[in-house]
Amino acid sequence: MRFHTARWRGNDLEILDQTRLPNEEYYLRLRSCREVVEAIKSLRVRGAPLIGIVAAFGVVLAAREARSKIEFAVAVNELKESRPTAVNLCWAVERMLITFHAYADSPDRDRKLVELALRIQADDDAMCEAIGRRGAELLSNGSHILTHCNAGALATGGCGTALAIIYHAHWAGKRPVVFADETRPILQGARLTAWELAHEGVNVRVITDNHAGFLMSQGRIDCVIVGADRIASNFDVANKIGTYSLAVLAKAHQLP
Amino acid sequence: MRFHTARWRGNDLEILDQTRLPNEEYYLRLRSCREVVEAIKSLRVRGAPLIGIVAAFGVVLAAREARSKIEFAVAVNELKESRPTAVNLCWAVERMLITFHAYADSPDRDRKLVELALRIQADDDAMCEAIGRRGAELLSNGSHILTHCNAGALATGGCGTALAIIYHAHWAGKRPVVFADETRPILQGARLTAWELAHEGVNVRVITDNHAGFLMSQGRIDCVIVGADRIASNFDVANKIGTYSLAVLAKAHQLP
Repeated sequence: MRFHTARWRGNDLEILDQTRLPNEEYYLRLRSCREVVEAIKSLRVRGAPLIGIVAAFGVVLAAREARSKIEFAVAVNELKESRPTAVNLCWAVERMLITFHAYADSPDRDRKLVELALRIQADDDAMCEAIGRRGAELLSNGSHILTHCNAGALATGGCGTALAIIYHAHWAGKRPVVFADETRPILQGARLTAWELAHEGVNVRVITDNHAGFLMSQGRIDCVIVGADRIASNFDVANKIGTYSLAVLAKAHQLP
Repeated sequence: MRFHTARWRGNDLEILDQTRLPNEEYYLRLRSCREVVEAIKSLRVRGAPLIGIVAAFGVVLAAREARSKIEFAVAVNELKESRPTAVNLCWAVERMLITFHAYADSPDRDRKLVELALRIQADDDAMCEAIGRRGAELLSNGSHILTHCNAGALATGGCGTALAIIYHAHWAGKRPVVFADETRPILQGARLTAWELAHEGVNVRVITDNHAGFLMSQGRIDCVIVGADRIASNFDVANKIGTYSLAVLAKAHQLP
């Protein structure tokens, strides 16, 4: 990708401030756990995987700053409550805490925490790659793809989940055409998905959410690809409002 | 209704400027055919039936102003082209032209034109009443109704088409609950439908367009009522973008 969403700079964390997109590609330095909490609460970073990564670095900062175990516990608790619906957040923080406690009295503690946060980020990048590579095989040349909300590089530590498939098809020369639902009420599709796809040179146009069914009826959509906040073991999917409507519409038009 | 959308004042036409809603209930005087054209083009008045009524008064003004038949023809032509998709506009203007030509050389001409424009408005009011009275019989007490765009008093010369049914149910004490799709891209639902229903004391809440399917899946919608720009003789319906998606979703949830 030609931009990065979160980058550890040895001493602090640099994030792309997503509230300023698409008007400005502005990078912000987060120097304390409190600044990480603010960035998550204000949606400067969003997307379940990315929130997990940023929260992991939040634990790194909290460990460095805290003058007592109580102070550390308070900071971590604020971090966990900064976005209650993002399961990755809790998961990443819990993983970091295991390492924190394992190295509690070791001089290696802070280095180990940074290593683990970087590994969480690298693992997410690798998952995006795997999703993208395998998913792209399913797309024909010139496929018209409908997507909703943002499940792209801006939501992850790599090139995205749903959008990874589109990027890999694009990089393989398959020339995908993307219709991005604007995604009311806060327009992640219009602001974020359209920005990052266009930034990478993918053919993308924004539509109103209520336009999707009409395009399907006209045979202008070949498939729908969306992300998921969570997938249950019975394959139920939790995702942004509007995903269910798209699923019903896709089924009615026999679209995958 | 506690407001009026268009009212002939003997010498000019007073309209409610819908571009200022919901913030301001502002009435504007249209004193010339050119001002009527501007009001239609700028969506100060919209809704197929209301455009027809306003255009009829536009012909009244054009006849009064024109110093020659050519000047009159030019003015009427501008009027007809002010909103090409509104069939009522052409229909109303053509009806007015028959009277214009029938009384071309009569001193009664202008009075006859005003009478016809008032009759077009009164007929529309009567149609709204009939739709509302009959439709309301189909609604149970406390029905939860989804609607899209604006097919209310603000679109007609009476209490609306789709919304007439809701108003008559409300006036009959049936306490309807309305979910109004905000209706992107220009938000007629959020700006107009919510305003006029709330103004009349109807229980209404605005939802994003992509929210409708989820509410249906939760059993929170009993029926969908929308307007129609046109209905073909095979019952095909032309209406605002998003209406088709709602139809597919309603069918999937077996909702009328």
